[in-house]
Amino acid sequence: MIYRRVALIGLGLIAGSMGLRMRRDDLAQEIVGTARSAETRSVAVELGLCDRVVDTPEAAVADADLVVLCVPVGAMADVARRIGPHLAPGATVTDVGSVKREVVAAVAPHLPDGVDFVPAHPVAGTEHSGPRSGFAELFENRWCLLTPERPADPAVARLTRLWRALGSNVEVMDADHHDLVLAVTSHAPHLIAYTMVGVADDLRRVTDSEVIKYSAAGFRDFTRIAASDPVMWRDVFLNNRDATLEILGRFTEELFALQRAIRTGDGEMLHDYFTRTRAIRRGIIEAGQDTDAPDFGRSKSDREGVA
Amino acid sequence: MIYRRVALIGLGLIAGSMGLRMRRDDLAQEIVGTARSAETRSVAVELGLCDRVVDTPEAAVADADLVVLCVPVGAMADVARRIGPHLAPGATVTDVGSVKREVVAAVAPHLPDGVDFVPAHPVAGTEHSGPRSGFAELFENRWCLLTPERPADPAVARLTRLWRALGSNVEVMDADHHDLVLAVTSHAPHLIAYTMVGVADDLRRVTDSEVIKYSAAGFRDFTRIAASDPVMWRDVFLNNRDATLEILGRFTEELFALQRAIRTGDGEMLHDYFTRTRAIRRGIIEAGQDTDAPDFGRSKSDREGVA
Repeated sequence: MIYRRVALIGLGLIAGSMGLRMRRDDLAQEIVGTARSAETRSVAVELGLCDRVVDTPEAAVADADLVVLCVPVGAMADVARRIGPHLAPGATVTDVGSVKREVVAAVAPHLPDGVDFVPAHPVAGTEHSGPRSGFAELFENRWCLLTPERPADPAVARLTRLWRALGSNVEVMDADHHDLVLAVTSHAPHLIAYTMVGVADDLRRVTDSEVIKYSAAGFRDFTRIAASDPVMWRDVFLNNRDATLEILGRFTEELFALQRAIRTGDGEMLHDYFTRTRAIRRGIIEAGQDTDAPDFGRSKSDREGVA
Repeated sequence: MIYRRVALIGLGLIAGSMGLRMRRDDLAQEIVGTARSAETRSVAVELGLCDRVVDTPEAAVADADLVVLCVPVGAMADVARRIGPHLAPGATVTDVGSVKREVVAAVAPHLPDGVDFVPAHPVAGTEHSGPRSGFAELFENRWCLLTPERPADPAVARLTRLWRALGSNVEVMDADHHDLVLAVTSHAPHLIAYTMVGVADDLRRVTDSEVIKYSAAGFRDFTRIAASDPVMWRDVFLNNRDATLEILGRFTEELFALQRAIRTGDGEMLHDYFTRTRAIRRGIIEAGQDTDAPDFGRSKSDREGVA
């Protein structure tokens, strides 16, 4: 039992997974959840994501010692403004947003004295979204990044305990550094995947379903992350603009260099580049952040799905 | 039994998978294999990829009624020149290259009259390469594209039977059309993945292992295809230059439009774009070309790999 009463504001993939895990492992005495849509609230009751579902954020935070903001980044300011006056003294407020600097700027001004704000980002997720997509093991062996202003606060240590109990490794870092690193490992890759899928979608109209039929040649890998929640990702890009544009600038520069090598027939440059990029996957597999099974191990499930 | 004697020239992922499947299902009376490297030849013997392994392409094709060129695209011309004089009358020559127009140009001139050339491309593979990476089910429910000059030839029908027996669906198309479609579904995505991984690799030196630790946020998906065989991919880009550059041009155009939307804060444009790209993944899953399991189903194998 790490917290007495946890309030989950927003009940999508992340909050649902937190709720299921906290209930399974008795990490809080009571979990109260709320979501803007009545349908989401009713799914949350049906699936038992929380102990209790209420209609408003104001009601959810009453007497909570931990409040977790699980709404899209663009909705954080509004939620913080609404709950501010209703927070219990000594409560900790945290979030699960994929960008941190803008979330701090949006949330912190609305919190009263005596409430600790510990921004957090669980680096975990799938391409599915909504209250039905959560599962208790989502955070297992993933990282959760905390970007508190005062890392030595007891509130940080307590939230760290919760994330470890949820299965994560925890690291504390500066919000700006977080936003740059995630621009590389998440935001730029997502935008690139969305772009490639958009290009293919245009061409699909020309070539009928060929883009879909022959997608196993590489393209389908991009479609997974390009199937992620559009509202969440719109907000990520609008709120991590500088770092994302910086990484995309570097990306374009490199892409042009490779295009030039193709145009001029510089096979040596291409070969060296493609050799260098192999090592990084080995590092990811050794760090336990991906499976070594060919094709992410999906070939087997593909086959099982076939009559 | 579809062929009497099949010669596999080159013994990597594709040839190894063909050999294992043909032996398992008795699709040929005898399978003879060869590879340039003595080590690969000895692994092929050890794993039983063929019935018999010989030292040279010339020896492998003797008396074969099907010859399959399974070498990188850049090596096709040299192999064709060497085997040309040794091909049996009435034999069919085919290949498994990822580009078709340049392969036709490289191979056809070296083949004697009375030998049929039926270019082929099995749209299947994994990020692993080499003789140890093959498995008999690789082609199951994947597509094999044939680009023969004379689609009505009996040699085309016979090779179609083989590919169906290997588990594939078969489609006949024009070589140029093939190269454009594959530039979208395979070649451009691979170059983009290589580029993104290259950018991250540069940044890795700055941020130590953070790029690896937080790769589960999206980046790791790119590293899989960027771990593919460098020689194979160098040759693909050098030999499908025009189509790849055309698709990359469209890609850059779209990417710039999205970057501009981020810079100007055009959330509506981003949201609409990200919504549109969701549908294409649904199509791929419905076509049986990818799994619907979250994260390609790998979350489970991740967890299994963790103590």
